[in-house]
Amino acid sequence: MTQILEAKAGRITPAMAKVAEKEGVNPEFIAEGLINGTIAIPANVNHTNLDPVGIGAGLKTKVNANIGTSPQFTEIDKELVKLKVAVEAGADAVMDLSTGGDIDSCRKRIVKECNVCLGTVPVYQAMVESRVNYGNLIDMSADDLFKVIEKQAEDGVDFVTVHCGVTTEVVQRLRREGRITDIVSRGGAFLAGWMLHHERENPLFEQYDRLLELALKYDVTLSLGDGLRPGCLADATDRSQVQELIILGELVERAWEQGVQVMVEGPGHVPLDQIQANIILQKRLCKGAPFYVLGPLVTDVAPGYDHITSAIGGALAAWAGADFLCYVTPAEHLGLPSEQDVREGVIASRIAGHAADIVKGVKGARAWDDTMARARKSLDWETQLSLAIDPVKATAMRKEKNPGEIKECTMCGEFCAMKVIGEYLGANIKC
Amino acid sequence: MTQILEAKAGRITPAMAKVAEKEGVNPEFIAEGLINGTIAIPANVNHTNLDPVGIGAGLKTKVNANIGTSPQFTEIDKELVKLKVAVEAGADAVMDLSTGGDIDSCRKRIVKECNVCLGTVPVYQAMVESRVNYGNLIDMSADDLFKVIEKQAEDGVDFVTVHCGVTTEVVQRLRREGRITDIVSRGGAFLAGWMLHHERENPLFEQYDRLLELALKYDVTLSLGDGLRPGCLADATDRSQVQELIILGELVERAWEQGVQVMVEGPGHVPLDQIQANIILQKRLCKGAPFYVLGPLVTDVAPGYDHITSAIGGALAAWAGADFLCYVTPAEHLGLPSEQDVREGVIASRIAGHAADIVKGVKGARAWDDTMARARKSLDWETQLSLAIDPVKATAMRKEKNPGEIKECTMCGEFCAMKVIGEYLGANIKC
Repeated sequence: MTQILEAKAGRITPAMAKVAEKEGVNPEFIAEGLINGTIAIPANVNHTNLDPVGIGAGLKTKVNANIGTSPQFTEIDKELVKLKVAVEAGADAVMDLSTGGDIDSCRKRIVKECNVCLGTVPVYQAMVESRVNYGNLIDMSADDLFKVIEKQAEDGVDFVTVHCGVTTEVVQRLRREGRITDIVSRGGAFLAGWMLHHERENPLFEQYDRLLELALKYDVTLSLGDGLRPGCLADATDRSQVQELIILGELVERAWEQGVQVMVEGPGHVPLDQIQANIILQKRLCKGAPFYVLGPLVTDVAPGYDHITSAIGGALAAWAGADFLCYVTPAEHLGLPSEQDVREGVIASRIAGHAADIVKGVKGARAWDDTMARARKSLDWETQLSLAIDPVKATAMRKEKNPGEIKECTMCGEFCAMKVIGEYLGANIKC
Repeated sequence: MTQILEAKAGRITPAMAKVAEKEGVNPEFIAEGLINGTIAIPANVNHTNLDPVGIGAGLKTKVNANIGTSPQFTEIDKELVKLKVAVEAGADAVMDLSTGGDIDSCRKRIVKECNVCLGTVPVYQAMVESRVNYGNLIDMSADDLFKVIEKQAEDGVDFVTVHCGVTTEVVQRLRREGRITDIVSRGGAFLAGWMLHHERENPLFEQYDRLLELALKYDVTLSLGDGLRPGCLADATDRSQVQELIILGELVERAWEQGVQVMVEGPGHVPLDQIQANIILQKRLCKGAPFYVLGPLVTDVAPGYDHITSAIGGALAAWAGADFLCYVTPAEHLGLPSEQDVREGVIASRIAGHAADIVKGVKGARAWDDTMARARKSLDWETQLSLAIDPVKATAMRKEKNPGEIKECTMCGEFCAMKVIGEYLGANIKC
């Protein structure tokens, strides 16, 4: 039984109760969200050590961190360290995107050590296995792909990205309109290539019911991938992107009909003034299904700083209604992220999500800021540092920059405004 | 003759011509902006090595970096290195906020080595000198303050922050309403304390004509400080902040009547959903005068990452019409920034400004992104790295993360979407 089916049967599962408790809402609110499809609780029946999280309308904005091996860097242990760093930095979910080394072992170890929500993109492993088994990508069969999906579902993966909306219709629209960066989604690019080569429809679309059956069996949440997400500002919100989203909206409803949990993925590289429109569009076309966005990056020119370009876009997206932010690290467009990149990426996304939660009125969000402000006013460093979104970094920087342990900080020293106003106004200004 | 008076006399100065050339607009557009007050070119007649910059409507969003000694860190040489780092990172202006060591020498050396627009906050030096001469802050006289302003103007400072709007009326409103962080502007806090202690009006307000005379003499641009800028989300857009802005609007018009160039400073800590309103308010109340904002920071909880909280707010502010972003470094709320903090702060602000310039249609802004996108599509690393907003960091990261010099990058390796789509679609998709 999936969480949706349980909710429809009028039952509050332990996962629903846990999510409600964490969010400070009634379990009935969570159950209702599951029934309406506006909330997902990705929780594979085989992921036994999972501390479940709710993603969707009315809940805190969630953050995902991508980890995983690549063909050049295949060490599983390094990825397990990144898992630990991501979770410590506050990631609500982690995706294992491994494409190098022993992918099965890597995933099994991650599932075992991961108590946050875990996602994968099964087509990546299918691509790698095709290269190994057939010497190329193109000879992968539809069955090969489904076998990987089932294997990953069985292992306990909570949500899978499936690019079901990269249909022949969408690819044709893309070819007609043209783009600067064509397809930048790895899965999307591969599937489009496979479809054109074989002159066949996307198996994930054609055999969507087969996918739903698998999802139902393990309560794997489908995260409908945006294979046509724009890879640059110039390609944003074009016809093929919107066409894919329309199809994803239809697939959302088909998933719900079967009691399968579903989210929708979104862009990508989007100029500031198109972000809100993208969110409104997704929410309308996909009937309020949770929206999981990558970035959006608001400029293409900042490799090395794409955690910042994404934090800008992510804050706007979450404010407009996006529910789940996929982090982008400083390494984006340059290489595989290091542990430090993972940490910076998670924090940047959490800042974006929290800035949005404040103005969306998410329970407890603004109170955090107000408590911090009071600690600042009273120069209470201990409280300031413990309340910091990254207490480790804040504490280290405070120590490094203030060797003498002064009461103020070395920015202003004795000319600290807090101190000056305290000295000269004292109780004149109520606090 | 100030740039405004020259423009009113129908003359195109070399500074106007230079600014027009850099922005890709007609010199007449710049002259008109100067006459209307929507554009400022801070250019002190004594700053002879200045490469002038235009700030205001229709121009590229500009970025300022604060440097300067503090009571704990008094070494001038370190601040000169920060000046170099800031300018190399692309800062359009630098403010010397020194409050430690030999402030006069520090400023003179900075003027000499600085070919970008230079600002100061003279009240800081007045505070320091009061401490030295009288043993306290409060015994500073109005004349002491004006002497510092004149000294700094004579040295060639292009713009000065003057908190003329911290009037008795404003301070009374603040006391009535109450705040969590009261006054966080150093100058604002000091002046309010001084006014309350002496039961006198703010000398910068009371003797505003004296200030205008000085500004006129050296063509120093007045940057009307926001002494009441909110220091936390809870204090944003409150009555004292808006009251001060109303007064600043009146002072803007008095400056223009005398032919004095003027900008207005703005917040601060502001929730996402109040940023646009703050910009609209300033533009209306101050008749379109250039708006110079600090941040805004969209959450209070991220010490160590306030370059990111500010980049989010800065992008929104610039999009809404802010013209000039004061950087915030990762060291904000923790201590005096290091060279590395200065670099990160400048780049983060430039990202915010550029993201906004793209959607404001600033000349050449989007073309940069499109050229980068084409280089990405063709895996042309040399072009990608040279086009990066921080080529130094991007190049270092590319090298570090891709030891084998592969054609793609270590994120996806042979499963690179760009490569896959290139291999399997080739010319099928126009590029």
